[in-house]
Amino acid sequence: MDQDQLRSLLEQVRGGAVDVDAAIGRLRHLPFEDLGFAKVDHHRALRHGIPEVVFGKGKTPDQVSAIVAALVARAQNVLVTRTTPDVADRLRGEHAALSAQIEYFPASGALRLWRDRTLRGKGKIAVVCAGTSDLPVAEEARVTAEAMGNEVESIHDIGVAGIHRLMQNRERLMDARVVIVCAGMEGALPSVVGGLVMAPVIAVPTSVGYGASFHGLAALLGMLNSCASNVTVVNIDNGFGAGYAASLINRLS
Amino acid sequence: MDQDQLRSLLEQVRGGAVDVDAAIGRLRHLPFEDLGFAKVDHHRALRHGIPEVVFGKGKTPDQVSAIVAALVARAQNVLVTRTTPDVADRLRGEHAALSAQIEYFPASGALRLWRDRTLRGKGKIAVVCAGTSDLPVAEEARVTAEAMGNEVESIHDIGVAGIHRLMQNRERLMDARVVIVCAGMEGALPSVVGGLVMAPVIAVPTSVGYGASFHGLAALLGMLNSCASNVTVVNIDNGFGAGYAASLINRLS
Amino acid sequence: MDQDQLRSLLEQVRGGAVDVDAAIGRLRHLPFEDLGFAKVDHHRALRHGIPEVVFGKGKTPDQVSAIVAALVARAQNVLVTRTTPDVADRLRGEHAALSAQIEYFPASGALRLWRDRTLRGKGKIAVVCAGTSDLPVAEEARVTAEAMGNEVESIHDIGVAGIHRLMQNRERLMDARVVIVCAGMEGALPSVVGGLVMAPVIAVPTSVGYGASFHGLAALLGMLNSCASNVTVVNIDNGFGAGYAASLINRLS
Amino acid sequence: MDQDQLRSLLEQVRGGAVDVDAAIGRLRHLPFEDLGFAKVDHHRALRHGIPEVVFGKGKTPDQVSAIVAALVARAQNVLVTRTTPDVADRLRGEHAALSAQIEYFPASGALRLWRDRTLRGKGKIAVVCAGTSDLPVAEEARVTAEAMGNEVESIHDIGVAGIHRLMQNRERLMDARVVIVCAGMEGALPSVVGGLVMAPVIAVPTSVGYGASFHGLAALLGMLNSCASNVTVVNIDNGFGAGYAASLINRLS
Amino acid sequence: MDQDQLRSLLEQVRGGAVDVDAAIGRLRHLPFEDLGFAKVDHHRALRHGIPEVVFGKGKTPDQVSAIVAALVARAQNVLVTRTTPDVADRLRGEHAALSAQIEYFPASGALRLWRDRTLRGKGKIAVVCAGTSDLPVAEEARVTAEAMGNEVESIHDIGVAGIHRLMQNRERLMDARVVIVCAGMEGALPSVVGGLVMAPVIAVPTSVGYGASFHGLAALLGMLNSCASNVTVVNIDNGFGAGYAASLINRLS
Amino acid sequence: MDQDQLRSLLEQVRGGAVDVDAAIGRLRHLPFEDLGFAKVDHHRALRHGIPEVVFGKGKTPDQVSAIVAALVARAQNVLVTRTTPDVADRLRGEHAALSAQIEYFPASGALRLWRDRTLRGKGKIAVVCAGTSDLPVAEEARVTAEAMGNEVESIHDIGVAGIHRLMQNRERLMDARVVIVCAGMEGALPSVVGGLVMAPVIAVPTSVGYGASFHGLAALLGMLNSCASNVTVVNIDNGFGAGYAASLINRLS
Amino acid sequence: MDQDQLRSLLEQVRGGAVDVDAAIGRLRHLPFEDLGFAKVDHHRALRHGIPEVVFGKGKTPDQVSAIVAALVARAQNVLVTRTTPDVADRLRGEHAALSAQIEYFPASGALRLWRDRTLRGKGKIAVVCAGTSDLPVAEEARVTAEAMGNEVESIHDIGVAGIHRLMQNRERLMDARVVIVCAGMEGALPSVVGGLVMAPVIAVPTSVGYGASFHGLAALLGMLNSCASNVTVVNIDNGFGAGYAASLINRLS
Amino acid sequence: MDQDQLRSLLEQVRGGAVDVDAAIGRLRHLPFEDLGFAKVDHHRALRHGIPEVVFGKGKTPDQVSAIVAALVARAQNVLVTRTTPDVADRLRGEHAALSAQIEYFPASGALRLWRDRTLRGKGKIAVVCAGTSDLPVAEEARVTAEAMGNEVESIHDIGVAGIHRLMQNRERLMDARVVIVCAGMEGALPSVVGGLVMAPVIAVPTSVGYGASFHGLAALLGMLNSCASNVTVVNIDNGFGAGYAASLINRLS
Repeated sequence: MDQDQLRSLLEQVRGGAVDVDAAIGRLRHLPFEDLGFAKVDHHRALRHGIPEVVFGKGKTPDQVSAIVAALVARAQNVLVTRTTPDVADRLRGEHAALSAQIEYFPASGALRLWRDRTLRGKGKIAVVCAGTSDLPVAEEARVTAEAMGNEVESIHDIGVAGIHRLMQNRERLMDARVVIVCAGMEGALPSVVGGLVMAPVIAVPTSVGYGASFHGLAALLGMLNSCASNVTVVNIDNGFGAGYAASLINRLS
Repeated sequence: MDQDQLRSLLEQVRGGAVDVDAAIGRLRHLPFEDLGFAKVDHHRALRHGIPEVVFGKGKTPDQVSAIVAALVARAQNVLVTRTTPDVADRLRGEHAALSAQIEYFPASGALRLWRDRTLRGKGKIAVVCAGTSDLPVAEEARVTAEAMGNEVESIHDIGVAGIHRLMQNRERLMDARVVIVCAGMEGALPSVVGGLVMAPVIAVPTSVGYGASFHGLAALLGMLNSCASNVTVVNIDNGFGAGYAASLINRLS
Repeated sequence: MDQDQLRSLLEQVRGGAVDVDAAIGRLRHLPFEDLGFAKVDHHRALRHGIPEVVFGKGKTPDQVSAIVAALVARAQNVLVTRTTPDVADRLRGEHAALSAQIEYFPASGALRLWRDRTLRGKGKIAVVCAGTSDLPVAEEARVTAEAMGNEVESIHDIGVAGIHRLMQNRERLMDARVVIVCAGMEGALPSVVGGLVMAPVIAVPTSVGYGASFHGLAALLGMLNSCASNVTVVNIDNGFGAGYAASLINRLS
Repeated sequence: MDQDQLRSLLEQVRGGAVDVDAAIGRLRHLPFEDLGFAKVDHHRALRHGIPEVVFGKGKTPDQVSAIVAALVARAQNVLVTRTTPDVADRLRGEHAALSAQIEYFPASGALRLWRDRTLRGKGKIAVVCAGTSDLPVAEEARVTAEAMGNEVESIHDIGVAGIHRLMQNRERLMDARVVIVCAGMEGALPSVVGGLVMAPVIAVPTSVGYGASFHGLAALLGMLNSCASNVTVVNIDNGFGAGYAASLINRLS
Repeated sequence: MDQDQLRSLLEQVRGGAVDVDAAIGRLRHLPFEDLGFAKVDHHRALRHGIPEVVFGKGKTPDQVSAIVAALVARAQNVLVTRTTPDVADRLRGEHAALSAQIEYFPASGALRLWRDRTLRGKGKIAVVCAGTSDLPVAEEARVTAEAMGNEVESIHDIGVAGIHRLMQNRERLMDARVVIVCAGMEGALPSVVGGLVMAPVIAVPTSVGYGASFHGLAALLGMLNSCASNVTVVNIDNGFGAGYAASLINRLS
Repeated sequence: MDQDQLRSLLEQVRGGAVDVDAAIGRLRHLPFEDLGFAKVDHHRALRHGIPEVVFGKGKTPDQVSAIVAALVARAQNVLVTRTTPDVADRLRGEHAALSAQIEYFPASGALRLWRDRTLRGKGKIAVVCAGTSDLPVAEEARVTAEAMGNEVESIHDIGVAGIHRLMQNRERLMDARVVIVCAGMEGALPSVVGGLVMAPVIAVPTSVGYGASFHGLAALLGMLNSCASNVTVVNIDNGFGAGYAASLINRLS
Repeated sequence: MDQDQLRSLLEQVRGGAVDVDAAIGRLRHLPFEDLGFAKVDHHRALRHGIPEVVFGKGKTPDQVSAIVAALVARAQNVLVTRTTPDVADRLRGEHAALSAQIEYFPASGALRLWRDRTLRGKGKIAVVCAGTSDLPVAEEARVTAEAMGNEVESIHDIGVAGIHRLMQNRERLMDARVVIVCAGMEGALPSVVGGLVMAPVIAVPTSVGYGASFHGLAALLGMLNSCASNVTVVNIDNGFGAGYAASLINRLS
Repeated sequence: MDQDQLRSLLEQVRGGAVDVDAAIGRLRHLPFEDLGFAKVDHHRALRHGIPEVVFGKGKTPDQVSAIVAALVARAQNVLVTRTTPDVADRLRGEHAALSAQIEYFPASGALRLWRDRTLRGKGKIAVVCAGTSDLPVAEEARVTAEAMGNEVESIHDIGVAGIHRLMQNRERLMDARVVIVCAGMEGALPSVVGGLVMAPVIAVPTSVGYGASFHGLAALLGMLNSCASNVTVVNIDNGFGAGYAASLINRLS
């Protein structure tokens, strides 16, 4: 039942064409949640600057193409995660007018249509990663955060076994309003970073490692047990989720 | 917003005291789900014969007492699972008039106020268990199914390593409309029973065992991998859940 | 020992050609289970409308072809799960007369020879899935339930993070006699659906996800711990099992 | 080396009592990190309103007493988590003048000396829990967030299997600037809440459950795989960590 | 249907009181497995010297007492595993005439009524254990094997880190017809023993250890991956199962 | 130090060329284990009929070829497990004179040079498997047992969900002196078979299954928790180990 | 066969009382490993300063008393790990003359008879722990290392979330020849320490933590995946093993 | 801030160009850790003979080429682990002058530029492996240890099931100053070796095995639970880490 239907019903009540009991009866049998104006209005405002997102993995090029075609019409920014160069080429072909605004990031497989570049974050988001193998996850976090209107400070290759590299970047870390830390293997970096800054830290375990890393499980457990109290955690390799949550935090005012 | 409020609002619309836009506005800002008559009515009918249930574990006697006091007023049958003899004594004292109808089952810790004994099931529910150590879980399933209006056929102590005992009970198994099978250790019994009957089988892994049973994990995995296609599974030791789901199936008509 | 042999023996007893002790002796040394008429008869009736099923994964095209050839002769409906387009083409060639009745479903790899389309279910089975990636599992459930004589209501793409989509489908869910819910990642949908309906809910965890989904383990554990009491669970990705068990429930009368 | 020592050294350099090479030598052999003024100053400002925290579990009453005695002198607010009534009584005795300001929360075992009650949060923090058994964890989160200067909105007992209870609290949820969700068993609530609000959601898996909940593992995995992108996760039962991280987010301006 | 019933039926057939079809009909509806003479006879012979066994853990003294009372009548030897001294005292009181033949073994909690001491094994069974903490499991194996008619050679405290102790016992090991090896921690001993002897080796992982032994899991996995091909494995701490299987092997002739 | 060296030394002692202390000194510095005649002799007799075995997986064709070339000279029977058709062809080429005696088994990848076909087993070994997918593992067990001088009775495709098929094979099972049971999925078959026979049962979990079978873990745990006391277990898919251990048992006399 | 027996045999050979063949025959049938002088001698020298060790957990006071009584006679230093104050009191009573040299450490439960206090280590061993809860494990490591002749530098309470505390102790860390690091929760400290020093680092995961620490598993996995290459790992809570291995390394010259 | 900058600042203080407060201010705002002379100097000495190491897995040939080009300029020895023959060929082409000194080891994928062949180890490092499948891991350990200036004694193919092979190599094992033991499957070899030698033993679990080896987990757990106290453990397949840690130990003087 949309707003027009409700108005029409109420006008019939007012005009006497429908009596009160009948109106109650008709309201009763309708799926009430279609009334939900408040929610929609409320969310519409809140959702400014949130891109539409397609999880590309496991979707065929046809599927991605169809979904993106629908989204392009109603959203300024569209993000496709974990997709392939072929899909990127195809989307550029299908949306030739937007081609210059479509970026593809091969390390992470992220694709971004970035039209609305309004800065909505109140501060900088730092995206830190422990080793070069963690770069794809960090890239996914950065691409997401940028598409949601944030300035991102990327800090690479600072592992806990070389603590001086971390210390050299301390000021940059302390300048950030939210910090994302991506690390595989033992996943210790978020604890150390968390101890240096007062900002919220979002930890992303990566599947980097071998043997007893068990595809990121070691890093995940390490981060969940962090002795730094400002650390929260997302799924293994979930750069997107970290970038998304950090962006919501950074736009709080 | 309850029905009275809605009626009042609609009458104001009808009488002109509230215009249509204002009415829409007021409807818009209300928690719409309070309108949900259909749902309540619909469920009220469906819920006939479903006892109110309290998960007793981890609740203090005071908490159980207070919750039961509230439930007794509005439900014919009340089930408290995993509670203690002390709580049973206390409840019998607090509800002296109902004392004769309050049963306590020490093996499983189930307590039942069973006033409405209408038979609602269309057939029998068989509750099978593999060994005597599985009896508490089977008891919880039986007590639940009975309180939900079912005739229960209990078949005890038929393990897969003594297949002749199982075969001797084949007719009783084949007479049941739904079969619940409780087994610990290797959890193989549901597969064998499932191959003998055409009824839906609900498997309950129990935590009976030691060592590599890992507190019921072995039985759980075994049941999930059952080669009998009519087997579905509930949580370890969840006799209540099995009794509940079996009762819903058995009342289908 | 089949029925003819038994008759012959008994007639010899009657005629005096075999005395009682000798008859007992001969009965004693026979594999007694071959006597089992009751079982066969009993099952024959019950099994009406149950298709023959071949688990296609790990079988060569030759093996599937041989098994199907044998089954086609004695069963109206045959279901091959998790097979390939090549096998589908070959079977259509080998059973040219049935070719029009052989359907292949590429998403799930299910193949169906569906000759007996009698409706045996007493109500509708709803097959719900959380995301588009869960569609193959939902398809396997639907194809199975249909082949077993059920009307299936497919409800797609209603995740718990978009609760309004779920609410919009509430009526369709409440109309179903049995509900199958397929979900990966956190596997939360069966709990929410289970809270909305009074029907038995069969939950199918899917291997959709990454990282800490551990190939469906997260969803499986979630479903086993469901706070909705009407939920039972089958193996990860086991759409077939869910469709099968739901069909047995739905034909109860 | 503190600031006075450094000043003294530099004055000796200026006065000629120490030459440059000797000064370099002395600087070289000192633990350089003691120079770290910037850090200390910077943190001193940031740390306003952050209580000193003692993890009480596994510490003897003597140990807790000694640590608290030291902290009381330098911090307005002190939080002791997971401690016992005995320790609370002892601390009240030892700090008689503060006794009225020492609160003990038996469900969670938290103890709070709360002297500085300045409101530092920019909005409300909602602390939601799924069942009554999750209350201790929610209490720890609330007590922490309050001690860090936040207004807390507690919303109890809204599970995913009773979605209408959740919907009735939607407005309260949408009013919060940060949402903490505590849930055991399948841990599905954060996903549903995350879909309803645009605020950051911190999910706390609880060890509530039995069998295949594996002491909170099922809830933890479910939350890590949440399909709601605004959800981050802390350790099982870590109400303190959730309250702490939420407080840091809520004070961002 | 027992033999008398069958004889009676056949005599009625012979006498003409029951015709062949009726006889078939009556046979058809009987639980056929009750006919199973062959099995019973066959087993009776095979089972000579196999004690009746009661798994004592989780049974009340009343239950154990009742079960043993029934078994004493029909079996020469009775074994109760994992029971308590109280139960032992009670059983000695209840079976005063047998009191001298009831042995209780406190380390393992095994209780044995050992009347038939016929030696049935063809050779010796060696029961080896790695450390003193493994002694209870070794005792359970020995007590079982003795009660089943075997001469047992106990070899204690020969760990793989002291290979010379193992070598000193090499001749005793090589004299055994079957070898049982109990070991916790890394569970390496069966591999080393397996390489020294040509006899079948039954490995029993014990829950001895701490930390990453995970209650015997480390030893279990080690034994399953043994590089010695003559090693098979039973459940953690399952001394009884090892003694039982070894006894069956040792009585092969 | 071989026997000749020892004799020479002792003769020098006898002849006075070496005095006692010098002899002790020379003996002391030699690797004593080379003295071990007893062991070698003892084993030589015991090892009659034990084939040399090469674990083919992960070895290059060159490596397998070289190892086999060395073994052919000193052993009548050689078994290569988990190898490829290419290797089989190459070995037939390299050992043209033996080509007719080299068998390759594609399902399991076993290759067998079988020259000494003496029957050494005292009875039959039954190799049972639950489903057609378990055939490769059963084949590896059979090929091994045959090469070690046993008559093997293969019983295929008798799952626990079709208990009548199992019962029909009861006599064949009861005739075996040792039984090997291969099963994947829930791994329940060994328990049922173990309950039917008095022979030792060696259970082989197979990796057949999907989802919560976790590559054979479910079957493995099930078998370790078997309620049949005559069941011991080997590693997942380890048909070779089962065949080997069964052969050692079957040659006991 | 000890040296006397060998000498006697050789003298008989020399004297002609035993001929060479008989001597070979007698040597052949003896357990050759008893000859092993070299080993004993070699080890005797190496073992100087290695205490005798009793793993106290799971042993009764009687057992510990008997073992210690035997060891006191032949070893200067004796270490009993994980024992109780009662055992300590008893041992002091039983060895009154040594009472002053018997130390008991309540946090770890270690008991030490320390008579030979020769310093055998070539440098210092640093024993570092992350939090006060890790102190018992660190104490076990220290007590062990001291009893093996090492000077131990204890550095407490330096966690990775407070990196400045770690840096302040850098010089002490860099002075150590071997470093032991005990840490629970995320177990990150060994990586950070490993990056600061060039010495071998032995990491001891502790069971300190809760929830997803899984009794030390998180710390263990973290340490095994350390990005610092000089880190090796021992079992959870195995302070003794770390102290022992560190002592062997530190005595290398 | 390097030493030159510091000197310049101090000279300005001495000369009066900068006053003390300003100097403190400038020192305060600098990243203090750049002062760290001691660390750099100290490490420079310690790091003599430590090769630069590149973890090759997951890096593109371009990336490896660029990193190696940078390292060649400043390090005598460079080690690239887990790389491919293509990368080896490319590096030889790019560094034609060094081509003769670049070695590639196909089994492990290690590549070594070995210019500084100074022997720095004080004794020999033994690298032992259990089976031929463990050779690649052993090779990685050996190549690392050699590049760090050690003489390596390789002992291959001595498994615990053939203890005589191990005993024959006892002297070689006892000659080593550090022992590395690589083993898959049950991972028992380090315990046996650890019992034979007094040297520190570094155990490397390998992923060799199948089924319940769980890709090296069984071996890892076995080694962590070793009953030999001189055993420490590194990650699964981490030959490099073992070689590195052993080299650090072996250079201790």
